Amino acid sequence: MTTVFHSFADKRVLVTGGAGFVGSHVVDALLERGARVTVIDDLSTGFEEFVPKAPRVELVRGNLLDQPLLDRLCQGQDLVFHFAANADVREGLLHPRRDVEQNLLATQNVLEAMRKHGVKDIAFSSTGAIYGDCAVLPTPEDAPFPIQTSLYGASKVASEGLLTAYAFGYGFNVWLFRFVSLLGPRYTHGHVFDFWRKLRSDPTRLEILGNGEQKKSYIHVADCVAGMLTAIERADGPINILNLGHDEWLEVNESVRIICGELGLSPKLSYTGGERGWVGDAPKLLLDTSRIRALGWKPTRSIQSSIIDTVRFLEENPYCAERR
Amino acid sequence: MTTVFHSFADKRVLVTGGAGFVGSHVVDALLERGARVTVIDDLSTGFEEFVPKAPRVELVRGNLLDQPLLDRLCQGQDLVFHFAANADVREGLLHPRRDVEQNLLATQNVLEAMRKHGVKDIAFSSTGAIYGDCAVLPTPEDAPFPIQTSLYGASKVASEGLLTAYAFGYGFNVWLFRFVSLLGPRYTHGHVFDFWRKLRSDPTRLEILGNGEQKKSYIHVADCVAGMLTAIERADGPINILNLGHDEWLEVNESVRIICGELGLSPKLSYTGGERGWVGDAPKLLLDTSRIRALGWKPTRSIQSSIIDTVRFLEENPYCAERR
Repeated sequence: MTTVFHSFADKRVLVTGGAGFVGSHVVDALLERGARVTVIDDLSTGFEEFVPKAPRVELVRGNLLDQPLLDRLCQGQDLVFHFAANADVREGLLHPRRDVEQNLLATQNVLEAMRKHGVKDIAFSSTGAIYGDCAVLPTPEDAPFPIQTSLYGASKVASEGLLTAYAFGYGFNVWLFRFVSLLGPRYTHGHVFDFWRKLRSDPTRLEILGNGEQKKSYIHVADCVAGMLTAIERADGPINILNLGHDEWLEVNESVRIICGELGLSPKLSYTGGERGWVGDAPKLLLDTSRIRALGWKPTRSIQSSIIDTVRFLEENPYCAERR
Repeated sequence: MTTVFHSFADKRVLVTGGAGFVGSHVVDALLERGARVTVIDDLSTGFEEFVPKAPRVELVRGNLLDQPLLDRLCQGQDLVFHFAANADVREGLLHPRRDVEQNLLATQNVLEAMRKHGVKDIAFSSTGAIYGDCAVLPTPEDAPFPIQTSLYGASKVASEGLLTAYAFGYGFNVWLFRFVSLLGPRYTHGHVFDFWRKLRSDPTRLEILGNGEQKKSYIHVADCVAGMLTAIERADGPINILNLGHDEWLEVNESVRIICGELGLSPKLSYTGGERGWVGDAPKLLLDTSRIRALGWKPTRSIQSSIIDTVRFLEENPYCAERR
């Protein structure tokens, strides 16, 4: 079995979560490559402004728990990018059913809508969080069987399992991308956003979750999107599991230094303490990306420049913070 | 954090699926050790006859999707054995939502009922099927990150993820047992049952799924239950992930020979062909059990004697087949 996406030109693509941070960049990239795009997004964390108003793109406001809507939207598609998800790892414990519903059940709804209409190709945004506290760094895709430390990670590994079971059982072709943290324009979530928002409210001090020594890898969203499209065009097996990240990594303290430098601030720092930012946070995250690099992709931007790019976007687009 | 189950005497234990094959043997063993047991079972595959009528055991007929019932039953328990599940791997593709609902959602319902009442200790029946087509044999618990080949496996790895996330996030103590196939009295599911039932209907011929060269490990249910109770009494971390199986393994063809020998039959054999019995079936399954052996447990019965024990039970209790 070989996959068919050697070109996106004139393909019909459904992007769930296409008004979100990563999803909307995928939409842009697909339009550039000549695809026709349908976006489904409930705009709970996405922004209508992120989706271009263009003849080849349609934005449908809706939730993936609405199976009839999903069924309708899947009809006639060539490929699905399934990005809609609850991405709030930290608050998982306050709403223990949210990750299961919005990530796992939603994923099965997407798969069932695809199956109903004979759509068999799906790319999925998984996460490096599924490796838990992996002792192997950088972590390869076939790292030792991980222990899930968060409901978010559990819901993503569960979704991955469904996707590959559909590949085995129903002949689906699946691309599972395990991301490090992303940065860049339209970023409205994560530590750079949190720090920027705290500093905006009080530029004289900054509270850091954990001891600041968490060390993680990040990647610019443009590099991430390029990596995914490359993998879809070039990978040719039914099951493609690919880490997507940078070979660089950075301490949170260093990240703080870059953000404050860009903003021209010298806040007094305080720490909540402990090696983890929150329960289930992995203190270290660095992924082995040799598998996707072998397909001819590599990151083009440094983490430092990605952080600066993110801060500039937030400075120029404060509505992203104000409406949350 | 250390766990508290150095004895089951006078403990209150809820067993979901306690009228099923493995669950009912757990109930027997718990009663022998002086526990008080509540069984919840919807009797869809379990049998009322399997649950002893005794003052220290209560059987409640109900489904785990009934959250209020679960909430009520969890109150005051010291430990939960969560065994209720859809265990039909083969038919997963005919009912793709069944595994998610009956295995994953049911598991979260159990966890939420426990959380509501401060019950924090749970043992869970996982499966060696979550290792997929693992290249490492015998397969240890920290085998390379597996790719799920069945909806059943996907639902079990998803449930495992929830359990460990609850351990990290809410202080639960969890025992995850990854079983090989089980054999013994009250067995009403799996290849020995299938072969016995086919031969009962026509003793002159037997159709075997796959090429008969699938080679797997099996364990007697009595050994399995002893292993679980040993692990709960002796393991003392919050997260205990343990393979449970035999160091022996057996080809399906050899199993057929033993069954036919016990029944005194010489059927004409035919094969559906292919290395897998069905889509998502792992052609080889052998688990590394050194982790649980280090706790002082080992199997006491051979696979051959376990198969014979199973066939004798089926011969003496044909109602198990007739009512299915």
